[in-house]
Order: sequence, then structure tokens, then C-alpha cells
Amino acid sequence: MNRLTILKIGGHVLADPAKRTQLLADFAQLPGAKVLVHGGGKTGTQIAERLGIQVQMVDGRRITDKPMLEVAMMVYGGLKNKQLVASLQALGINALGITGADMNVIQAIKRPVKTIDYGWVGDIVAVDGDRLAQLIQAGITPVMAPLTHDGQGNMLNTNADTIASVVAQALSAFYEVHLVYGFEKPGVMIDPDDDQTLIQQLTPSSYADHRQQGHIVGGMIPKLDNAFDALNHGVNRVYICSQSALSGLHTPQFIGTEILIPSTSE
Amino acid sequence: MNRLTILKIGGHVLADPAKRTQLLADFAQLPGAKVLVHGGGKTGTQIAERLGIQVQMVDGRRITDKPMLEVAMMVYGGLKNKQLVASLQALGINALGITGADMNVIQAIKRPVKTIDYGWVGDIVAVDGDRLAQLIQAGITPVMAPLTHDGQGNMLNTNADTIASVVAQALSAFYEVHLVYGFEKPGVMIDPDDDQTLIQQLTPSSYADHRQQGHIVGGMIPKLDNAFDALNHGVNRVYICSQSALSGLHTPQFIGTEILIPSTSE
Repeated sequence: MNRLTILKIGGHVLADPAKRTQLLADFAQLPGAKVLVHGGGKTGTQIAERLGIQVQMVDGRRITDKPMLEVAMMVYGGLKNKQLVASLQALGINALGITGADMNVIQAIKRPVKTIDYGWVGDIVAVDGDRLAQLIQAGITPVMAPLTHDGQGNMLNTNADTIASVVAQALSAFYEVHLVYGFEKPGVMIDPDDDQTLIQQLTPSSYADHRQQGHIVGGMIPKLDNAFDALNHGVNRVYICSQSALSGLHTPQFIGTEILIPSTSE
Repeated sequence: MNRLTILKIGGHVLADPAKRTQLLADFAQLPGAKVLVHGGGKTGTQIAERLGIQVQMVDGRRITDKPMLEVAMMVYGGLKNKQLVASLQALGINALGITGADMNVIQAIKRPVKTIDYGWVGDIVAVDGDRLAQLIQAGITPVMAPLTHDGQGNMLNTNADTIASVVAQALSAFYEVHLVYGFEKPGVMIDPDDDQTLIQQLTPSSYADHRQQGHIVGGMIPKLDNAFDALNHGVNRVYICSQSALSGLHTPQFIGTEILIPSTSE
């Protein structure tokens, strides 16, 4: 099978024009088929503030009420997505910016209310890998915004890490898929402030150990759960690395964390 | 050749949820292949005002400066486009929201400065009709926002009537194309306040007459120029009609203005 690289880029790169330019140049240079998945970053919050929309929080979690969903549609689905598409076109990459609603590539349900009502947030139920593979075969590079839809006419805010994981899984039927989570640090680290503590490889058992010892906490946990989920569903390789490490991918000089499931027992 | 209908919808329908729902239901019912082109309407101006962005005017013309371009990308490329896509998906239409940058379907140049610098406004130079036709053959309904790109990384604000016309022309190599300009009035009228003065047919010579007599003025002139341009470049039929007339298209009950070029001299 041919190789396909899915890169998820984070908000801090989107917000920094110089970093964004360098990252897109590195992405354009990657050999083989490609998919870009982006989050929204701080611009969403900034635009919401300028529009006088209050970010709703419940138990420390952000809630996507209707005004905030509209901001996500504007900033992630419009501004950021089209900036990336136009920039990639200028680099000779035939990009197509999409949400999950476009061509119905990702359908979701509004997250059921248990203890918290998260609002217009989507839990993914179906990905059309065939359609995405057809586009990619036709020379197109999908650029995916963190939005899905429910098939009933509603858009839904959806975690970009999860979109990257499920799209990687769906495309693993057609490609040898490498999933790369771009990150603001060199990878998963025991001490986030000390680059020397980079964990070069994480397996299910070492992940469990690091969690138990309190080395891996917070937002890294759902990211790693998405990473292992991808490996458990056909994705060949998963990396978490600094966006500046992208040009070294698949070389001995690569710096980052590889997430892997050993084929024999450890 | 199979028939393809291109509908351009105006801002006043986008802004009215009840009218939008009815129009999309009528659009979904149209037989054959379809393309939807939308403008932005007043939401762009409203969002700009809420963001504290001043609309720049020179000689009574709106200028698209950088902040206003970003608003267009947010509101037209994001919010409005994705609302339409999600609504069409709910109606069973496999919609794909795009700008001209997406898949490089419409390339433009930043309008050269003559007497007025219009800012980030695009004059279209190329349309990829093959790519659009391939998508449509694959069962996709393109939903096109009024934005193009320059191939150098810049998005450009672009007139939706013109996009509808050039896309219709490009697709006329593959389809019998019917281009419909949805309008807030029943069609082209001698007295805009009197529905009895509807002009049912406009030819180049009657258009010239009506202009000379001052019946056709203002924004209707570029719209009609786009309409005749389409007919001169392979488009089969062009109509200007009320959005509520869409369901009557191709029936004897149709109310609106047909723009046509007689095949024999008048």
C-alpha cells in the first residue's frame, strides 16, 4: 500500500504566521498522499470576545452554546480553513477545505447529556473513508476543520485530535497510514520544561506506568487515547512531535514520541 | 446532454430562516444535477460592525480591506456556507461547500487599481470545469461561496453573480446548463414596485431599449451583463426570478424574466 501521512496541527502554529509558513512548507514536502487536520486555537476565543460572546464554562469545561458554535463555524470552518487552503495552493498542493458535513464525510451525534451538557459538540459515529480515498487518489489534499454534522441540519464542534484519529483509521483500508500529532513541545515528556525527559516510545504498558507515576496528565491523556485507538484500528504509525520536527519524519534524526503497540508481548 | 441547474441565491434569503428552508427544499426537489452559489448578505456587515470594523467606502463603492476580507472568509466561507451544506445534507443532497481556492476551482487576480483600489477583490481568470464536472458526476452538489484565490496564498472577495455565470459557462461543456438568479423581486421590472410591469423576456435589443429608457438601472445592469455573458458562452438558459418561483421552473406556471439571445435576427 502507498503511504499516507495525516498531520494534525495545533492552534499555536495557526496563530503564528512565520511558524505556519514553515510548517506548511514542510508538510508540502512530505512524500506521498497527505491529509491536514487543524484545530482552531485562540482566534476562536478572541473573535468571541470581540463579538461580546461569553465563553460558557461548566465544571472547568468549555460549553459550545449556539453563539460559540457559530464562532467555530466562522473561525475554524471559514477563516483558518481557507487561509490554510490558499497557502497550500500557493505551494502547489491541491488542497480542499472541508468539515464533516461536506460530502457527509464525518457524521456525528450531539453529545448525550450525562452530568454536563456540552452543547453543540459532536461524538463521531461514521467516517466515509471511501469518499476521502477517492479524493486523495484524484490528487486532492483534504484540509479538515474541527467540525462535523448530525445529518439533521446541525453543525457540531468536534475535537481535532479525534477527527485526525478516526480519519486515519478510515483511510487505513486504503493506505499505510502515518498519523502525526503536531505539538508545541518535542513530544510526550516526563517534565514538560525539560527537553531531556522526552519519552521516545510509548507502549500501552509504559503509558500505564507513566500515568500511574503522574508523568502524563491533563490534555495529553485524551490525545494518547486517540493515538492508541488509531493503532488498534489499522493505523500503522503514530507520532507526537514538535511541528518543527516534521521535516525529519522517517529519518534517523527524527525527534519525538512514537506511540506503538508491540507485535509480541513486551 | 443531461441538465444541470445553477442557482444563485441572494443575501436576503440567507438571512431569513423560513425563506431559506423553503428555498433549499425547492432546490433539493429540482431534477438533475445542481450547483448552489450564494452571496453573503447583511450578516457580513453585521459581524463587521460587531467586531468594530468600519466598512471602507470610496466613491460609494465598498472596499475590501484586509479586516473585511477576513470577515468575508468567516461569514461567507464559514458560517453561511456550512449552514447551507448541513441543511442540504439533511435534505438528502450530498453538498460540498467550496470557495475558488478549494481544489483550485476558480483562480482570480486581485483587481488592478485604476481609479479605485477595491482592495482584496478578485477578477476571475480561470475555472476548472473538469474538476467540477467530475464532482457532480460523483453525486456531489457544490455549494459555492463568493470567494476565490490568486494562487499566491491570498483569498479574494468575488461577486457571487459573476461566479454563478463563469461556473455555468465552464460546465456547459458537460451539461445543458440552466442558470437561475434568485432575486427579491419577481424578475426584471420596469417599475420595481409594480409586479404587473415584469419583463418576461429580455433579448440584447430589448435590454438596450430598456436601458435607454431608464427602466433598467443600478445593480441589475452587472447582473444582466453576467446573464448575457453566460448565454454567449454556451449556457442554454438564464432566468432571473423570485426565489419562490423556483418550484415552478420549467413549468408553464413559471413567473420570472428569461434572458435570451434569439437564434435568428429579431
